[in-house]
Parts: sequence; C-alpha cells; structure tokens
Amino acid sequence: MKVYVIGLGLIGGSLALDIQEEFKDSTIYGIDINENHIKEALELGIIHKEGALDSLNEADVIIISVPVDVSLDLTKKVLDTISENTLVIDVGSTKVDICKSIEDHPNRRNFLAAHPIAGTEFSGPKAALKNLYRGKTNIICEVEKTAFKLQERALSIFSKIGMRIRYMDPKSHDKHIAYVSHLSHISSFMLGKTVIEKEKNERDIFDMAGSGFASTVRLAKSSPAMWTPIFKQNKTNVIETLEEYILNLQQFKELMQQDNFEEIYKEMENTNHIKQILNGILLDA
Amino acid sequence: MKVYVIGLGLIGGSLALDIQEEFKDSTIYGIDINENHIKEALELGIIHKEGALDSLNEADVIIISVPVDVSLDLTKKVLDTISENTLVIDVGSTKVDICKSIEDHPNRRNFLAAHPIAGTEFSGPKAALKNLYRGKTNIICEVEKTAFKLQERALSIFSKIGMRIRYMDPKSHDKHIAYVSHLSHISSFMLGKTVIEKEKNERDIFDMAGSGFASTVRLAKSSPAMWTPIFKQNKTNVIETLEEYILNLQQFKELMQQDNFEEIYKEMENTNHIKQILNGILLDA
Repeated sequence: MKVYVIGLGLIGGSLALDIQEEFKDSTIYGIDINENHIKEALELGIIHKEGALDSLNEADVIIISVPVDVSLDLTKKVLDTISENTLVIDVGSTKVDICKSIEDHPNRRNFLAAHPIAGTEFSGPKAALKNLYRGKTNIICEVEKTAFKLQERALSIFSKIGMRIRYMDPKSHDKHIAYVSHLSHISSFMLGKTVIEKEKNERDIFDMAGSGFASTVRLAKSSPAMWTPIFKQNKTNVIETLEEYILNLQQFKELMQQDNFEEIYKEMENTNHIKQILNGILLDA
Repeated sequence: MKVYVIGLGLIGGSLALDIQEEFKDSTIYGIDINENHIKEALELGIIHKEGALDSLNEADVIIISVPVDVSLDLTKKVLDTISENTLVIDVGSTKVDICKSIEDHPNRRNFLAAHPIAGTEFSGPKAALKNLYRGKTNIICEVEKTAFKLQERALSIFSKIGMRIRYMDPKSHDKHIAYVSHLSHISSFMLGKTVIEKEKNERDIFDMAGSGFASTVRLAKSSPAMWTPIFKQNKTNVIETLEEYILNLQQFKELMQQDNFEEIYKEMENTNHIKQILNGILLDA
C-alpha cells in the first residue's frame, strides 16, 4: 500500500507512524512545504521516502493533514490528479468548508472527510507520537458520498490504528467541536494573556503558579498557524460558544458582587458533574 | 515532635505523610470534624493517632488545613489553648483575612501564615500524596511577626519536605494568587458549565471531547466547600481578574466578528510565550 501524507506535523506524522506499524507492506511518502520537516520525518522514521505532488496518481491512500485553510485548495488539486482507485482523506478540525469546497468535484467519491480527535499542544514532525489514536474517536462526515470500496479501505486503516468511528454531518460536527475543542483553546489562550499582561510589571507572579494553572493554560501553547484558520472557518459557532462562556463568567462575577456565595457554591457543585464526563473521556483515551 | 494536623484533606494529609517520613521521631495526631476522615487517615497511615482539640497544649506543631472560612475562628481558638512553645501554621489559600483575624492575639508570635502552592483537583484523606510538596513554592506572610525559634522550626520542616520559600505580604499574596490560581479555577468551572449546558440536549457532544478539553476543564472537579470561601475572602482581587479575563475574551470575540484574523494570529503568538513560563513551573515541579 502506497500512502502519501501531505503535512508532516503532529497529526499526519502520528498517522504515518501507526500506519507503517499496522500495515507492514506499506510505503509512506511524505510531502511538506517545509524542507526541514521532510528531513526530520525521514530521520525519525515517520516516512520512508519524500513524495512529490505530481506522483499522487500512484497512491493508494493520500492523507491531507495541513492547516484547514490550506486544505481547501490543496484537496481540490489533489483530487484533480489522482487515479480512480485512490482514497483521499482530509483530517482537519473543521468539516463544513472542506466538504463544501469539493462537493461538485468529479472525484468526490474518492474523498473521505474525517476528524481524528487526538493531539497535544505541540506541532511539527517531532511532536508525532506512536499510538496517539488508540481508543480515540474519529468523526467521519458524509460517509455516503465516498465510494464503498474506499470507505472500506479507510475503515480498515482507522480500525487497525485503534480508533472508534462516529458518523456525523459536517454542520453538527463543526457546531459540537466548537464547544468541546475550539472554546477550550480560546479560554486557555485568554487566560494566558490575562496573566501575562499582569506579569509584565510583576515578574514574581509566576513563582506562585502551580500545576493547576499549568493544566488550564496548556492549550495556549498551541500553534497560531493551525488555529487561526480553524477559528476563521468555524467563526459563527465559535462566536456562539464564546458568547455563552462570557455570559457565564459575567453571571459568576455578578453573583460575587452580590455576595451570593450560596449560589456560587451551587454553580460549582453542579459543574462538578464534569467528573463523570471526564472519567468517560479518560477511560476511552 | 508532636504534630497535630487539623483538617485531613489533600493538603493536611500530604503534609502529614511527608513530615512523618522526614522526622522519624514525630507522632502525627489527626483532627477532623468528619469521623470518616479520621478513620481513613488512620487506615492509610497518614496519622498515627486521633487527636483532640483540648490536648493542643502538648503539641510542638499544629497545622491548620481547613477551608479558609473555618480557619478564621478556629485559628483564634487554637491560639487560645496552646503552650508557649507551640508553632501554629495555617496553610490556607488566602492570607489577608487570616492574618488580620489574629493580629492582636496575645499568642500572635506562635503563628505562621503559609501557603504551600501544591495540590490536585481531588479532596479528602484519599487524595493525600507523598512528596506533593517537593520542589514547590511555599509563600510565607508576615514572617517577622512569628517568634524566631518557631520560624526556624517551620523552615526546617518546609526545607526537609523539599519546598522553596518566598516571603510576601498578605495583600500581595492575595492579589497575585487571584491571577495564577483563583482565576484558573473560575475559567475552568465556567468552561465546564458552558459545555454541560449544551450537553443537556445533545449528549453525543462528549464523545467528541479530547484530552485538550479534559486538561482545560480539570479544575472544575475541585471542591465547592473549599473554593467558595476562598472566592469570598478574596472577592475584590478575584473580581478584578475576572473583569480583565472577560475583557480579553470580548476583545477576541470582536476581532473574530471583524474578521481580523491577522490580529487573532498575533494574540495567540504573543500568548505562546506562556511556553517558557510553564517550562519554568514544570522544571520546578
């Protein structure tokens, strides 16, 4: 099986590692606009060979793991050049725009829209991890628009690397993921910003920060190049989540101003319910 | 050395574990209003014996690790009953009110105000951890108001369990800690609330949550009984941090509404600076 991975970051690199582990006969070709990434990916054994965009017609599987704005044009171009039997998988964090951009493409049935929900705050080939996807959820959108035999190939890959599949329409995907992923990133970035602004004058402050702060602000280390286009593409949903989040914060502040600490206790107690939810996530993880 | 720990939760329990490890001749007496906590602490080897409030005069060291509202009255009562040579340490997360509440107490010089910055989102004796404090920061307030030989005793304990000391006045402590600890808890609780509210109608949403969400929302598992009085005592500072945080979130939202994604990129890039800061925390941790 010839697998081309376009975009050798955390997501693409980790997929490459798991696919070569599970499909011993596979050859992994890597493509990246950053020459250093190719070099690193070869050195780290993430890919077997450097690939070229004009050889994509010989691929069995092409994985597109690039920032979501780059993916829109790129996926069209890739679909233009493939063979009849090539499966093209996009693994970006938004699904409405990408599905829309190729809906009328003559090779639409070669395309599968996926979102493997896994990652860390790091990026680049060095961030790639073996078994990143084991036990994680993979959202597949518009599966019925992919040719049946190519669906089967995709599912065989995802199943062997340990993912469980959920099917969802692109609109629902983008709406839900705004809550459970995109909003967390903004809350974390803005927490980091608020504290850093304070630190400018008072450098001692971080001496006082503990592991709780570190955990809450972890996502603020994420790549702006990856996240800016995600927020742009998912603008409407993200703004909605932000408005609800700000409203909840404001309400909490008002309860404090009114000295209504009984209600503040209840708010926190109700939210403790997140324990059960997180146990679910962590058990699955 | 006879050590009395009042409040056998995560903080008090972990101190008890480390003190008995480092001071082999010590006997740890535990006091807690919850009878189950005494039982658990005995079973887990956190304390050697159950203690009683009317025997505190025989203690060399008394550690008060109870919710910060309970501590105000309790510390006064404890100071009323101790011997001349007893050191009383309060380890709560706010320092202004506790220092004020005992400022005129005749035994003020037996008291040391500390805030060991360590913990997890869990509570109760079962949450106690060995070596929780190793490499962590301990803020000591108004050290000059504690008798010199009792300062020495306290520092010997903190140094043996591996803490580094920072001295700070109570007002600065409460102001800074609002940013690096109290705000993180609220941002996390409100993130949890925002997502749970959505989940009420759409239960599938948590299938899509990954480790990023889990990390950002972790502190929302914290105990309302511990945190409500902290927010109450540190109301002014916490409201200030909340206002700045809300302002930053609103500004981010407005940038999105204006399609100013160049500026959003810059915001995130500037905040990536948190990497260096967190590296500092984690190296120390």
